[in-house]
Amino acid sequence: MKAAFMYGAGDVRTVTVPDPTIQEPTDAIVRIVRACVCGSDLHPYHDMDDAAEGVPMGHEFLGVIEDIGGDVATVKKGDLVVAAFAWADGTCEFCLDGLQTSCLHGGFFAAGGVGGGQAEAIRVPQADGTLVVLPVAEDSELLPSLLTLADVYGTGFHAAKQARITADTTVTVIGDGAVGLMAVLSAKRLGAERIILMGRHTARTDLGIRLGATDVVAERGDEGIAKVLELTGGHGTHTVLEAVGYRAAYDQALGVVRPGGVISRVGVPQYEDAPIGFGSLFGKNVTLTGGPAPVRAYIDELLPDILSGKVNPGLVFDQTISLDEAADGYKAMDSRQALKSLIRF
Amino acid sequence: MKAAFMYGAGDVRTVTVPDPTIQEPTDAIVRIVRACVCGSDLHPYHDMDDAAEGVPMGHEFLGVIEDIGGDVATVKKGDLVVAAFAWADGTCEFCLDGLQTSCLHGGFFAAGGVGGGQAEAIRVPQADGTLVVLPVAEDSELLPSLLTLADVYGTGFHAAKQARITADTTVTVIGDGAVGLMAVLSAKRLGAERIILMGRHTARTDLGIRLGATDVVAERGDEGIAKVLELTGGHGTHTVLEAVGYRAAYDQALGVVRPGGVISRVGVPQYEDAPIGFGSLFGKNVTLTGGPAPVRAYIDELLPDILSGKVNPGLVFDQTISLDEAADGYKAMDSRQALKSLIRF
Repeated sequence: MKAAFMYGAGDVRTVTVPDPTIQEPTDAIVRIVRACVCGSDLHPYHDMDDAAEGVPMGHEFLGVIEDIGGDVATVKKGDLVVAAFAWADGTCEFCLDGLQTSCLHGGFFAAGGVGGGQAEAIRVPQADGTLVVLPVAEDSELLPSLLTLADVYGTGFHAAKQARITADTTVTVIGDGAVGLMAVLSAKRLGAERIILMGRHTARTDLGIRLGATDVVAERGDEGIAKVLELTGGHGTHTVLEAVGYRAAYDQALGVVRPGGVISRVGVPQYEDAPIGFGSLFGKNVTLTGGPAPVRAYIDELLPDILSGKVNPGLVFDQTISLDEAADGYKAMDSRQALKSLIRF
Repeated sequence: MKAAFMYGAGDVRTVTVPDPTIQEPTDAIVRIVRACVCGSDLHPYHDMDDAAEGVPMGHEFLGVIEDIGGDVATVKKGDLVVAAFAWADGTCEFCLDGLQTSCLHGGFFAAGGVGGGQAEAIRVPQADGTLVVLPVAEDSELLPSLLTLADVYGTGFHAAKQARITADTTVTVIGDGAVGLMAVLSAKRLGAERIILMGRHTARTDLGIRLGATDVVAERGDEGIAKVLELTGGHGTHTVLEAVGYRAAYDQALGVVRPGGVISRVGVPQYEDAPIGFGSLFGKNVTLTGGPAPVRAYIDELLPDILSGKVNPGLVFDQTISLDEAADGYKAMDSRQALKSLIRF
């Protein structure tokens, strides 16, 4: 089959690799119908060391089950399914707590010997805990929105849930990428009436307004912080959803969070140490939360409004490519010509 | 009047200073009946630069109102009152949210021109928002327990509340000082059934057991972390109440917190930067919370069980001194001969 592999910074190729096969009785083989490129795929695209053998890429996909192992009980051949980006057994103590990203028998796609989702097919470990059947046809127009359940919608929703957003909560979303825009949609879903989106790409912030943002702040750093404070009576917002992952975004979050408020991070931090003492988090009683989103925990909740057409998170896809054009998708996203690239098979 | 002042590291003296007077119509003057030395008073005791004029000390006191300004309405001359360590108007948006430590018109005792509580009398700004009447006599045996409402009991309770402890929550408390022990009592109050106290002073951890700790881990660092993991099936506890403030205590908290859990800090951080990236907080979806406790918000809730004798937080006082002996109190606490020194007038 064909699959996208990365061989070093800026070097993505569509290559031919062996077809995946059932290895464990809990596995399923999925023929992929839609996949996409994630903002987090751009991190290795920027700094990966050269690797002659390459690494598989992609962790967002939906497709049709072609084969299942002997222990798989909740999905069957022919089902159209979406996978959470972290595969998980669904039965361990962490899964039962809704923290599938810490599953005792789980892991991540495109890592640890499991293939990537930017491929014609994939082996899905722990199929019962990982896959959710989608009650639509393989050619449904809803597929792009349904694909966001694999990561970006659930990740934005995780940010909002962890921040405990309600109608009384003012919100700043930092970042106008796909996850930031999904955080806007999620904050609105949880009832927030004031959602300030910090981003400087007009096409994206315009989409943010369509998804629920009430204000847009294009400035960054101290200037952006001053603008948000000005919009909030000098105190900042109750919650800040940080959907970037760079240190500058964290510093911005510290600047716009209200005393007693919450910074909820879902952008994968590209730093380890940062200020958390009296002058940053502690003195203002600010809570810091977030992490890799257990999107599996949210699919059941988010699915109905996509099926009914009430929400359309698939709007984040503004480029459609074939698997052979995977390199173009990375290039377009990296240069910000594309917000998010959908791969159609 | 007499008051304890600090003139440099290790240099506390009881000196004579002018009596406090009403300066604002919202002020009250309180004749102090009981005060005490706080673990946080030991930080300047370790590292304060020499200051010829000295600085007033102490932020925990109860006493009798001797005078009030013209706008004071909820307390009157002759009332026995306890003060929250952060004075606050009780009416601003942050006070109404229960975050009196961020009061728009508030501040801290022994700072910014307001005197300290280790003194015969004190001017209390924003008396209506800061003072709570105690329905006992000036010679009540309950005074030591009531005095803990000024800081340490409310601070331990803040740690537990911010961690959202319930009966289903396992707890590690780091630190066997007065605040750590009050965190144990508070965790038990909120229903926790498993409370692991990390501390190595047997007299204190014995008191911790009396207050609700179910396990004691005397080891520190990696050895202590391994012990807690061993006690919790390898995963750590849902919540960690960090009542020390040193970086080593934060690192210990990272080591014993369960994925998806909460680290709640009330020890004033003696560091600013620390790990919060993928390898520490983020990857495990750990929430970091806490800060200076808005103890005023908790007094109404905590008072009845002290009055009824159900709880006895005053057990943290194991030394009683006079104001003239203030230096001895600091010395005893610094050398860990005393857990907490009560000043009796």
